[in-house]
Amino acid sequence: MGKKNRTAITPTREQDYPAWYQEVVKASDMAENSPVRGCMVIKPWGYAIWENIMNQMDVLFKDTGVKNAYFPLFIPLSYLEKEAEHVEGFAKECAVVTHHKLEKSEEGGLKPAGKLAEPLIVRPTSETIIGESMAKWTSSYRDLPILLNQWANVVRWEMRTRMFLRTSEFLWQEGHTAHATEQEAKERTMQMLDVYTKFVEEHLAMPVIRGRKTASERFPGADDTLCIEAMMQDKRALQAGTSHFLGQNFAKGSDIKFQNEEGKEAYAWTTSWGSSTRMIGGLIMVHSDDDGLVVPPRVAPAHVVILPIFKKGADNRVIMESAQGLKDTLEEQLFHGRKVVVEIDARDIGGARGWEWVKKGIPVRIELGPRDIENNSVFMARRDQASNQKKSVNREEFISQITDTLDEIQDNYFNRAVKYRKENTFEVDDKNKFYKLYKKTKGFNNGAFVMAHWCGSEDCESKIKKELSVTIRCIPFDSPTEEGKCIYCDKSSSRRVLFSKAY
Amino acid sequence: MGKKNRTAITPTREQDYPAWYQEVVKASDMAENSPVRGCMVIKPWGYAIWENIMNQMDVLFKDTGVKNAYFPLFIPLSYLEKEAEHVEGFAKECAVVTHHKLEKSEEGGLKPAGKLAEPLIVRPTSETIIGESMAKWTSSYRDLPILLNQWANVVRWEMRTRMFLRTSEFLWQEGHTAHATEQEAKERTMQMLDVYTKFVEEHLAMPVIRGRKTASERFPGADDTLCIEAMMQDKRALQAGTSHFLGQNFAKGSDIKFQNEEGKEAYAWTTSWGSSTRMIGGLIMVHSDDDGLVVPPRVAPAHVVILPIFKKGADNRVIMESAQGLKDTLEEQLFHGRKVVVEIDARDIGGARGWEWVKKGIPVRIELGPRDIENNSVFMARRDQASNQKKSVNREEFISQITDTLDEIQDNYFNRAVKYRKENTFEVDDKNKFYKLYKKTKGFNNGAFVMAHWCGSEDCESKIKKELSVTIRCIPFDSPTEEGKCIYCDKSSSRRVLFSKAY
Repeated sequence: MGKKNRTAITPTREQDYPAWYQEVVKASDMAENSPVRGCMVIKPWGYAIWENIMNQMDVLFKDTGVKNAYFPLFIPLSYLEKEAEHVEGFAKECAVVTHHKLEKSEEGGLKPAGKLAEPLIVRPTSETIIGESMAKWTSSYRDLPILLNQWANVVRWEMRTRMFLRTSEFLWQEGHTAHATEQEAKERTMQMLDVYTKFVEEHLAMPVIRGRKTASERFPGADDTLCIEAMMQDKRALQAGTSHFLGQNFAKGSDIKFQNEEGKEAYAWTTSWGSSTRMIGGLIMVHSDDDGLVVPPRVAPAHVVILPIFKKGADNRVIMESAQGLKDTLEEQLFHGRKVVVEIDARDIGGARGWEWVKKGIPVRIELGPRDIENNSVFMARRDQASNQKKSVNREEFISQITDTLDEIQDNYFNRAVKYRKENTFEVDDKNKFYKLYKKTKGFNNGAFVMAHWCGSEDCESKIKKELSVTIRCIPFDSPTEEGKCIYCDKSSSRRVLFSKAY
Repeated sequence: MGKKNRTAITPTREQDYPAWYQEVVKASDMAENSPVRGCMVIKPWGYAIWENIMNQMDVLFKDTGVKNAYFPLFIPLSYLEKEAEHVEGFAKECAVVTHHKLEKSEEGGLKPAGKLAEPLIVRPTSETIIGESMAKWTSSYRDLPILLNQWANVVRWEMRTRMFLRTSEFLWQEGHTAHATEQEAKERTMQMLDVYTKFVEEHLAMPVIRGRKTASERFPGADDTLCIEAMMQDKRALQAGTSHFLGQNFAKGSDIKFQNEEGKEAYAWTTSWGSSTRMIGGLIMVHSDDDGLVVPPRVAPAHVVILPIFKKGADNRVIMESAQGLKDTLEEQLFHGRKVVVEIDARDIGGARGWEWVKKGIPVRIELGPRDIENNSVFMARRDQASNQKKSVNREEFISQITDTLDEIQDNYFNRAVKYRKENTFEVDDKNKFYKLYKKTKGFNNGAFVMAHWCGSEDCESKIKKELSVTIRCIPFDSPTEEGKCIYCDKSSSRRVLFSKAY
């Protein structure tokens, strides 16, 4: 499949990382930019990954007692204003509906008509509108907890967009819960972070660092924001999921009150937690290589592609029947609850055919020609191995081992990502070294994950951000108490936090 | 469970059909009106039905080669204008985004800011935006067919709304395909109508009449619209799915061109087909009764509820363990590919508990008390039988027959609906009789389904609509060729069409 040292994707990661990313998305046929400003078109190969993500996360949510519901797309402006920090956080980037019909304009085209008395905001997130319902549903402690999730589209107007990573419209899930006690709400906040951790590490094969955001990086209106952060291959961080403890802020704004067990009126404690199609951007940047997309088997649209090798003069129907038989037998098996999915690609387009599937990131490729059928074997290549490392395998053996093979590939991706992150994570105590690490970094090399001391002042945090574009990604839960000095101001500090550049 | 002759829903269908409908939705806790104009909140019990509908239809779509994708929520005004009839059809009811941020107003609140150069329309349907992509993807006949579907929210501004039946925002699926030949596109249009028929009849237990819309009732921009029509209990029709042959109209508007096998440039032939949360409104109105929701087992959120009967002085843990054991055993079984879903409701709220589940339409209710456990039996009630028709059944027998019982209930609902429609469908040849049947009908009685002759003129059609609010629902495929005279103008006609009032 092509000569050694030639890569399927141009430019390579090292040559031009952002261009490489766009090219991987394009070459795998996952998505493309839409002519509609800031929006993208998610094509079948990309959307199938999102379907797998939705189906698999949904099971994990429901296992914790959460139920799905659906709330309106439009939020009246007055609702958004109910929580001051919240509206402040979203005012600069929201799509505003002001009219409800079109009428003929003087120039002969159409123009907006039917002006609304109150503008409607296309939801950037749904705390305020769901809070309105929760207030209606909550009169006694017996009505709590309320545990809801919604799969939906949201809009945050972005000036600079990048497919999957930052688009004006994106797809996500947003969970919203209300509780009778602070303790229970805090536990739920952590429980959902645990769900995200499990999903992202076990299903997306992306190792994450778990922690708490600093005050300046919190969700607008939250008392506490927990997050998981993953390292991309360019050594920047990507936040792969957040879980917010909202205290009583939104309950007060939306009037979510109830009579507690003592018969007294009290405000509920609420949480919200979300993850989005951004995870797909993360998946691409953690796993993919200079030959294109690499997608972990558990969320891959298909697991195996069979490429029949036709010979002139031979009876090609025999090969097609053998391919179909192989597909049918493989698809009788389950891989983590989902059918093993097999594609047969019988197009007569030469070597480009195999490379297309490499670029799409399919975990296993099988060539099946007359000789393989004669020998009762298949010629197998794996996406986690070099593309010239193909080998002949006994057909029955291949079939019986397919789910183990897929698990092995999944594990290899995860372990490779853990190793890469480890090699690029450092404890730094010297300010010059810290600055040198990040100064003038860009493209494929954006420094590292740095564990460094921080005194806790917003001033030091914002100066580092301004001078280096480096932020505190989180205060990791497993960062031990330790005497030290702030990397910026030298004042005393009791623990290290995670610094890096970020998406 | 309550006295005979008392109904759980007030008013009854006969007393006030529209109020009965709202009350069924409320009493089953499926949904509620949102304070956001024209929008609804779909609560977990209602959304679970939609999830089942989505999952089950999705399998049927994919079996025909269709793949899911996702296109932008916003459509630039200029796109919508590409097809003249199409934009005309939607201009009066669309939400228009004109600004992309908010800023402080003089009064201290917020007002729209950042005016867009071109207004964006929140999609009422996606032919034009998907056409834009199809044009980009199509250069040779080898690129065809393109077979896509999207699950999405759409907005059509409605002045008078009714939950599930007519809301400004609703959830739906919209399929869009492009083909090299007219023949293939027409076959696809029919194939997707077949899929809808199968789904609505077998899964929703709603019998439908299949046919073709008259020119005046077609989708804006279509050459041909096929539909399925179901009879509600008030004898009005509800359109449960439509499949459109779009000819080359949208291909010309969006420039979907390709080089055909002869090397000549040609426009593609496209189709679109959709079904929505409206089906849930149909399901309610076909099956439900004066005791509340009736939901066919195949799409029911849960199949069985177990109601433990606690006795004072008895060891209630034994009952709860027995209930849990019953649940676990039942849930090991599959009902049409989906796990049998069992709820245990252990709330101590007296007789209201059983009635709540009747109103939610759960197919099977089980009471489980100390004596049942002693006798190794369960006390069973079925939603397709009178609520006082409860009987004791051997526990093992109940378990082994559960999927048969659910199939029987499903069949009973379907057969009951077929019978009802048959009793209320007439061939009418006399104009006076026709007018008498529909004149001053309302509430629970809206006449009937009438098969009558029609000459084919739009004039007769529109006069009947104006005078009686009765429309031609479709020209049924199975309406035989037959000599007759138009019910309105007495001119000669060659076949009967389906008339009725409609939602």
